[in-house]
This record gives sequence, C-alpha cells and structure tokens, in this order.
Amino acid sequence: MDIGHLLARELGADRVILRGDERLDAYQRDESPLAPHPCDAAALCRSTAEVALVLRLCREHRVPVTPRGAGSGLTGGCLPVRGGVVLSVEPMQAIKEISADDLVAVVEPGVITQRLQDAVEEQGLFYPPDPASLEYCSIGGNAANNAGGPRAFKYGVTREYVLGLEVGLMGGEVLRVGRRTTKGVTGYDLVAGFVGSEGTFGVITELTLRLLPKPPAQATLLAVFRAVADAGAAITALIGRGIRPRVIELADKASIDHVRPRSRYKFPADATAIVLVEVDGDADSLGLQLERIGEDCDRHGAIDIFAANDPAERRALWEARRLISPSLKEAHRFKIGEDVCVPRSAIVEMLGRVDRIAAETGVAMAVFGHAGDGNLHVNALCDDDPADPAVMARVDQAVGRVFADAVALRGTLSGEHGIGLVKRDYMPLEQSEQVLGWQRRWKAMWDPDDLLNPGKVLPARRAACSE
Amino acid sequence: MDIGHLLARELGADRVILRGDERLDAYQRDESPLAPHPCDAAALCRSTAEVALVLRLCREHRVPVTPRGAGSGLTGGCLPVRGGVVLSVEPMQAIKEISADDLVAVVEPGVITQRLQDAVEEQGLFYPPDPASLEYCSIGGNAANNAGGPRAFKYGVTREYVLGLEVGLMGGEVLRVGRRTTKGVTGYDLVAGFVGSEGTFGVITELTLRLLPKPPAQATLLAVFRAVADAGAAITALIGRGIRPRVIELADKASIDHVRPRSRYKFPADATAIVLVEVDGDADSLGLQLERIGEDCDRHGAIDIFAANDPAERRALWEARRLISPSLKEAHRFKIGEDVCVPRSAIVEMLGRVDRIAAETGVAMAVFGHAGDGNLHVNALCDDDPADPAVMARVDQAVGRVFADAVALRGTLSGEHGIGLVKRDYMPLEQSEQVLGWQRRWKAMWDPDDLLNPGKVLPARRAACSE
Repeated sequence: MDIGHLLARELGADRVILRGDERLDAYQRDESPLAPHPCDAAALCRSTAEVALVLRLCREHRVPVTPRGAGSGLTGGCLPVRGGVVLSVEPMQAIKEISADDLVAVVEPGVITQRLQDAVEEQGLFYPPDPASLEYCSIGGNAANNAGGPRAFKYGVTREYVLGLEVGLMGGEVLRVGRRTTKGVTGYDLVAGFVGSEGTFGVITELTLRLLPKPPAQATLLAVFRAVADAGAAITALIGRGIRPRVIELADKASIDHVRPRSRYKFPADATAIVLVEVDGDADSLGLQLERIGEDCDRHGAIDIFAANDPAERRALWEARRLISPSLKEAHRFKIGEDVCVPRSAIVEMLGRVDRIAAETGVAMAVFGHAGDGNLHVNALCDDDPADPAVMARVDQAVGRVFADAVALRGTLSGEHGIGLVKRDYMPLEQSEQVLGWQRRWKAMWDPDDLLNPGKVLPARRAACSE
Repeated sequence: MDIGHLLARELGADRVILRGDERLDAYQRDESPLAPHPCDAAALCRSTAEVALVLRLCREHRVPVTPRGAGSGLTGGCLPVRGGVVLSVEPMQAIKEISADDLVAVVEPGVITQRLQDAVEEQGLFYPPDPASLEYCSIGGNAANNAGGPRAFKYGVTREYVLGLEVGLMGGEVLRVGRRTTKGVTGYDLVAGFVGSEGTFGVITELTLRLLPKPPAQATLLAVFRAVADAGAAITALIGRGIRPRVIELADKASIDHVRPRSRYKFPADATAIVLVEVDGDADSLGLQLERIGEDCDRHGAIDIFAANDPAERRALWEARRLISPSLKEAHRFKIGEDVCVPRSAIVEMLGRVDRIAAETGVAMAVFGHAGDGNLHVNALCDDDPADPAVMARVDQAVGRVFADAVALRGTLSGEHGIGLVKRDYMPLEQSEQVLGWQRRWKAMWDPDDLLNPGKVLPARRAACSE
C-alpha cells in the first residue's frame, strides 16, 4: 500500500488528499515564484495525535514529510522537494486560551495571525508581530520562520513572543518545551531552537504566546524626501533622540514611481524617498513625539510632511506604503522579493549599491522595507519571459550581487522571510562551512534520517577536497 | 606533568594559579552559600587564543574545565565540582567597539556590566539588562546565564540583546555565530543555544550586543499597601491601562520589617507590601503616566504614595528596595535566595503559599522581586547552625516546597539566576525525563565527553527501571 492510501486508512479518507486529486496542487506550492513540486499525498491534520501519527507512519516507511501552515511563505520552505507527504496543520484553528491576567495566549498552529490579533485586541491585549501577510499567514508558520514585520523595530520579532511549544518530532514523539511565564532560565532554551528552524526540527502543534497590554493610542507620520541620504539622516536623528517608534518604514524612488499613478497623494516629481513613522503609547504623549519627529524630518530636508492620529487618516498615510508591493507585482511580468538586512549605518550605502546593480545588470530594482532594523525588501522586477534561461540567469546574477553586497556590508541574507529553498545555496556567502556543519549536527540531532522538510535551509554538503 | 604545570608552561606562569597557592581559593567558590570545590589550577585567559589553548589541552588530557566570569553567580554554576581547571575570562576586559549608528557594542566577556552600561550611556545609548549584581558581574556571565533584572519587564532579558557570539568549544575549536544586524533569520539560531546554557556548551570569548537609544527621562513611584492583594490589584490595573513601566517591583511584609530600622522613610506599622514602579521615555509624558499609576495605587488602597523625577529623589525611593537584600543578609546567620517565576495571576497566591510554608516549616521567608514578570526572590532566612544537618534538612524541605508550589502554579524554578548546581536536582519537579533527555543530547552535541562545566544544569540520569 502506498503512503497516501495508508494515511487515508489510518486518518480517515476525508483527511488525506491523494495524487490525482486536483486539490493536491495547492499543497505543492507557496507564494514564492518557484514551480510546484509533486508529492504523494497531503495529510490535513486536526490534532496533535494526527500529526504524531503521520510522523510515525512516514518515519516507519522512510517517507519525507514537509510540514505546512497557510502556505504563505516566500522562500519555497513548504515545498515537498523530495516528494512524500505534505503535512498540513491548517485545520488546527483553535484559540485555546487568552489570559489577560497572565498576558498569555495558547493557540493551535493553523490560527491565522490576523485572527489572533483581533481576538486579543478585543480583550485590550496586543500581539505585536505583524508580517505583511498577516491576513492569510498562520501563527505556526510565523514561529517556524521567526516572522517579523514593521512593528519589530519597537517590539521585536516572533521569537520574543513564543514562550512555550508543543512539537511533533519525526517518528511521532510529542514534546512540550518552554513555559508559561515571561521569564525563565530553567534548563536549555529548547524553544529557541524550534523558532526559525523552518519546520526542519519538528512540527509545531501548539504555541504558548506572550501578549502585551494594547497600547492606548497610535499616531502616524509620513515624510517625503528629495534624497535617500536625507531620509537616512532624519531617521538617525529621531532614533538618536531616544524616541522609540513602533514602525520606521522607508521606500525608494522606484517604489514611489510605481505607486504614484494609484496614490491619492500626488507625489512631487522630485520625490526619491518616503519615510513612514508610527508611534504608540499614551494618547497625550503622541502629539509631542510626532512634532519632534516632524522637526527632524524638516531639518533634514523633507519636502512634505503629514501627520495623523485618527484611524482613517492613519490608513490614508499608510496607503502609499501598502500599495508598493501590489503595484510592483501588477506592473511587471514577475518580481522576486528579497529581504536582506544590513546594519543601520549601511542602509543608504546599500540603496546606492542596489541602484548600481540595477544599472549594471539591466534588472530593475525597487526597495522598501523596515529601515529601523535595516531590513530592506529588494525587489527584482522583470518583464521578460521567466522561462528563458538567459533572463533568469540575469536576474539570478543581480540577486546574487544583492546578497553579496549585503554580506559585504556586514549584513545578512534574510531579515524575516527565512532561507527555505530559494536562499539555501547562498548560505555559504555568509556562513562558513564550520558554522554550517554545526547546524547540520543540530538538524541531525532532531531528525537523524533527514526526513522532515528535507532539502531546506542548509545547502548541500560541499564535496570533500581531494588533497 | 600535571595539567596545572602544563598550562603554566604553555600560557606562561603568570596566567596560571596552581594548587597550593592561596589565590586559588577565590576560583573555587561563587556567591552561593555552597562550600568551595577544590580544583587543580585556574587559568586566567587574556585572549580567545588562550581560551582555545586551555580547551584543547584539557580535552587532550581529559581534564574537566569550568568556565568562570566574575564569579558572582548564586547557583554554584562556576564551581569546579569535578576538579580540573577553572578557566577564567576575567582578564578579557576590552570594550572593542560601541557604534551609535548601528546600535551595537562588541565586547570581551570579562567586561563588568556596569562599566558597559556607563560606557554606552556616555554616548547616549542604553544597554537595558540590569541584574542586581551589575556592579561586579561580567557580561559574559550575563549571557551564559541569560541574566535578567528589574528592567526586564519592559526591555526583556539578556537573550534579547545578544546578536552574535564568539565561543571556544571543548577541544579548542573557535566558532563565531550570529550577526551584527538587529533582525536575521539566516540558518538556525545557534546563538540562542549558547545564551543561558551556563557555560556547558562553550566558553564565550566575544559578544556582539544590541543597544538602544538612551531613554531621555525616567520617573519613579513608590506605593505602600496594607495588603499584598491590594498591591497585586494595583499592578494589574496599571498594566491593563497599556502603560509599560520599565520596572514593577514588589516586596512583602517580612522584607519591609527587615528594612524598617534602616530606612529613612518611616514605614507605617500596618504596611505589608510595597510596589516600586519606574517609567521612562519622553520627559513630557512621564508626569501624566506617574499620575495615572498613582491613581491606580490610590484606588486600590495604597496608604502612602511618593513620586520623583529628580535623580536624587528617585534614588531615595529606591532605597527601601535596595536595602532589602543586605538587610536580610545582616539580620540572619544565613539566607538562601531563590528566584522562582510564576504566571502574573499567581503572584498573590504564591506569596500566600510562601507564608504558609514559613509557618509550617519554621523557616522564616521574605519575598521581593520583579512583580511585572512574576519573578519572585524567595529568601529562606535562618539563624541556626548551617553545619547542623537537621537545620539544613528543614531549610531544604522549605525550599523544596517553594519550588513545588511554583511549579504547581504553572511557574518555573528559575526566572533569572539559572540552575547551576543548587537547583539541578529539582529539575525533574518541572521537566519530564523526556525533556531532560533532549537537553542531554544537545549538551552531548557540543561536548560529547562531558568535560565542559560538568555536573551543572541537568540532574544525574535516573537509574533505569527494572521491569
């Protein structure tokens, strides 16, 4: 009996999608531009017990398992590159507990991030991580990839909010690690290993998350600059004041030019950078903070500055920022979005280098991102046929230079998307074979047969030198 | 040649303290009440190369190595329980870089935490973690133990500030992990494993730390209550407002009674709890925040409330809190300070249980700590002879009940001190043999011969059942 039919027998036919069923297509792709990878079956698990059963049976039959949340990843991290079984936790949608007293939520991995945020905010609480995909990504995937988002500048990334986990290990063992308290140093930090390991160590089946009280008020400021360097100087000035905005977003000229036709705000012709700053906290203090941020922008040459407290006006200021990604997508045959992260002092230099790479390779680039953290979304834009190998070679060359420059500026390949399949082979640009080797040993500790999400994160082992 | 003389030959005689030299005593103890453990030699390393050399030679000769920073730990974590060599990084005192632009510091592990804080604050920057020992603990030890402190409520613990590490592994391999950027999800989080592993995975030889801009102003409020439950309700109320104080400290009646004779403030006779709250941020916003916190305390029955902006007045408000630990120490023959952490909603219940344990065991207890995080320092106070086994049995029984109650309330054994030697055998109270087993495998990955800080964190393996 093949693995698909075996799972159907053990889990129930309604929980397993077999090869030949067109519904399987959706489980063989993610939001990356990568082609789908065929698999034998998808198991839609409703419970930890079902997850464990799939992991046990697949281990027994030496079948690779690729775990999957909402499939919203951008790196091919949930593609079944070695076939086998896709294990989806999408049906595990329960919010088991929200405790205002303990500032804790206990949730299943399939819960959509936005739904969790809405549920906790209804109780006056706050779950800060806000990946751009929050309306359709799931919290288990967020933890597996250590997702970020604009608010990471003040509040940190998903890692800072995962207190405890239940995970299913390859072979079917179920392990509970971590705690319910905010602080805790009892034994080694097993939780931290699972967060960001992209489903290669274990399958998250339950999360205990730290919450914060909801900040009482927010205010937003948008500033438009004639030069990226001016925008960078304004950001440095406002951070230097000791103000801690929750968001500091930046977008470059190419991004503005794409947004211009659709934006209600008429960008000046010489606009080359926008900065969006958001502060939160006590309502009474926000006006003054915004005033000071406005002064910094003004002193560093902003040509337009807008501020808003009211939700509708704040949404209007966010409009330009929100339009960037869809505008880029619509305007071009395809786009490849990367998310390098550089030290803050290197942001302006990195933007200059991206312009140079675009000019030299002929691949258009647009950059926006989380300037407070140095996390830049560099988008390669292309109108040629992606099926043409010469086209893709040119794009790959441009992207490779972006990575190399980010690393040369003491940055890193990925600030928040993860490595998955698409950046796996760039890992040696940043990390030595020694560092990769220790990661391989760590992976082997959890999954010695390399059956759980194989082929992700770590590049293939380098051939041994013959000397 | 014994290991001491071998190290003296290889490192230079001035870097090695041999057995028989009375200076060795200081390297055989820490700030815990545990008796010193004899070792063969202490190696005082000045560089990563020297650390690596010691780790190589000791591995070759199968000699245990116990790494040590400033020796300020409270858990026996740096005691050489299996003899061998104490590897001290105390001489590695360089602050290599402070970058205001990148909000990063690069330091050697022996740097005293206070010195780092002063150095970064001079440049308008801020390193938040503030363990009570900050005047004499070292930053390498802070990272090895994932140190906390009062400001963790707003700013998190050491883990949140360690971006990159250089570590020496048993055998002499030197490994650089992590990054310089605030965000980064490139590969597995090797850094997180070293932070909090108490020197059992590797010896930290360099740290890249995240800094924040220094908050422009601080303000402090002290409130005195007649009932612990009132204090708890006031804290819940102010957190519920969405105010994020940097500090929320709590102390119980026994603590107040010890401080009363030395404090300039004359505590009312019926005071049973004090709450100390500190906010930081924009100067203009702090007055209003303090006013609201004061209202919360008032509404929940505070009998006295004091507020201060000015540094000298703020220090005066901190006086009572700062006097607790030395007052307890002076008033009793010995004290054993634990640091359990419970979910916030269980704080008042935990304090009640501690009173009950004190009454039932006859071991006096005083509790103070970081109420915002539920991290309570429970101090067992004793005036009998600690050399008398019956006395220690009674104290051990009381402490054991404190741990059991913290775990029963869904808390954890240690919020910030770590496990070391003193809490090692309590680990099974909280963690299953399964969870301990995975930690043993992780330890074996880094140190398969169990030579690096052996005998710490994990309890001895349970004898196999005969069935």
